[in-house]
Amino acid sequence: MKKHSVKKITFPLSKVYRLLEPGPVVLLSTVRAGRPNAMPMSWHLMMEFIPPLVGCVVSNGDYSFATLKQTKECVINIPTVELAKTVVACGNTSGSDVNKFEKFRLTPVAARFVKAPIIAECYASLECKVVDMKLVTKYNFFILEVVQAWIDPVRKNPRTIHHQGEGEFMVAGRTLHLPSPKTSLGGKKLSGTLRS
Amino acid sequence: MKKHSVKKITFPLSKVYRLLEPGPVVLLSTVRAGRPNAMPMSWHLMMEFIPPLVGCVVSNGDYSFATLKQTKECVINIPTVELAKTVVACGNTSGSDVNKFEKFRLTPVAARFVKAPIIAECYASLECKVVDMKLVTKYNFFILEVVQAWIDPVRKNPRTIHHQGEGEFMVAGRTLHLPSPKTSLGGKKLSGTLRS
Repeated sequence: MKKHSVKKITFPLSKVYRLLEPGPVVLLSTVRAGRPNAMPMSWHLMMEFIPPLVGCVVSNGDYSFATLKQTKECVINIPTVELAKTVVACGNTSGSDVNKFEKFRLTPVAARFVKAPIIAECYASLECKVVDMKLVTKYNFFILEVVQAWIDPVRKNPRTIHHQGEGEFMVAGRTLHLPSPKTSLGGKKLSGTLRS
Repeated sequence: MKKHSVKKITFPLSKVYRLLEPGPVVLLSTVRAGRPNAMPMSWHLMMEFIPPLVGCVVSNGDYSFATLKQTKECVINIPTVELAKTVVACGNTSGSDVNKFEKFRLTPVAARFVKAPIIAECYASLECKVVDMKLVTKYNFFILEVVQAWIDPVRKNPRTIHHQGEGEFMVAGRTLHLPSPKTSLGGKKLSGTLRS
């Protein structure tokens, strides 16, 4: 694995939901037998604030499935629109055939708590451990705990991409601020599942 | 329930993932004892194309939790930015205190297969039945099957909203087309979990 300084800084675990809840396509990185791999994924959801839990579907037809099941570790990397073509390229090839990090010039950076690599080109990266595989057999559904989060402090207003299928991606647009009395009091009131 | 003609038309179940995969905030509608309720939710993910399966977290602190667990039915309604203030208002009140449909002037429309109402003001609505509650006790995680999908055929380029927490929402921006040979051949290659 290429060694170079990580430009990202630590991001609070309590705010991880702010990165994933909007629904961006992510690049799931794993490593097996010293060889890193990266897979685009957009079937994921937040399941808890603290510790941050993330549920995701990784198909048993995907090369990453066996690795994730075996190593129980991965990194969720969040790309922006500048990486869109690379994301699609990663989605159209299999780790069983090619080393995508080399082929698509992604830079693997050593993570702190997992062996799977951080992707330097992504604006945020979440080191994860698999904590529940009860629904893997039936639904290919893994529950991950985020144990360390990183973000690029320089990147302002990151334009994430959101998969719409059939070759279409929605690019993140403007931010709408809708402060409310209850939000300012607690924050959690408008978080996650919101409320009712 | 107010009776008036549904302006939405049937939407193919095989394309439901295209509505939810980008990660919009939705309004989950339920009904108990004849009284409808609506709750904003953004902790959801696609789990299967056909039949379309959707996983979601509905907190046991929410009024909708008991209703969903008991009736095993709901409608996932997808609002656009024009409804953002109503969505926040629904998130800051509880169905235990108020009838949100009346208070926030949402129009309940009779669904085809479930008792929960379609929200007329939302551009798409997905009638759902709960099919798996194995992870409800531990994670408040429900698995739903979409049994009927509706869409407003008039609304072009719907601007969905995506919850970022702390009173911020990302509004859906432009669409990026990234056709690739493999996408045009199958479609599924770039769908869902994409690939690797």
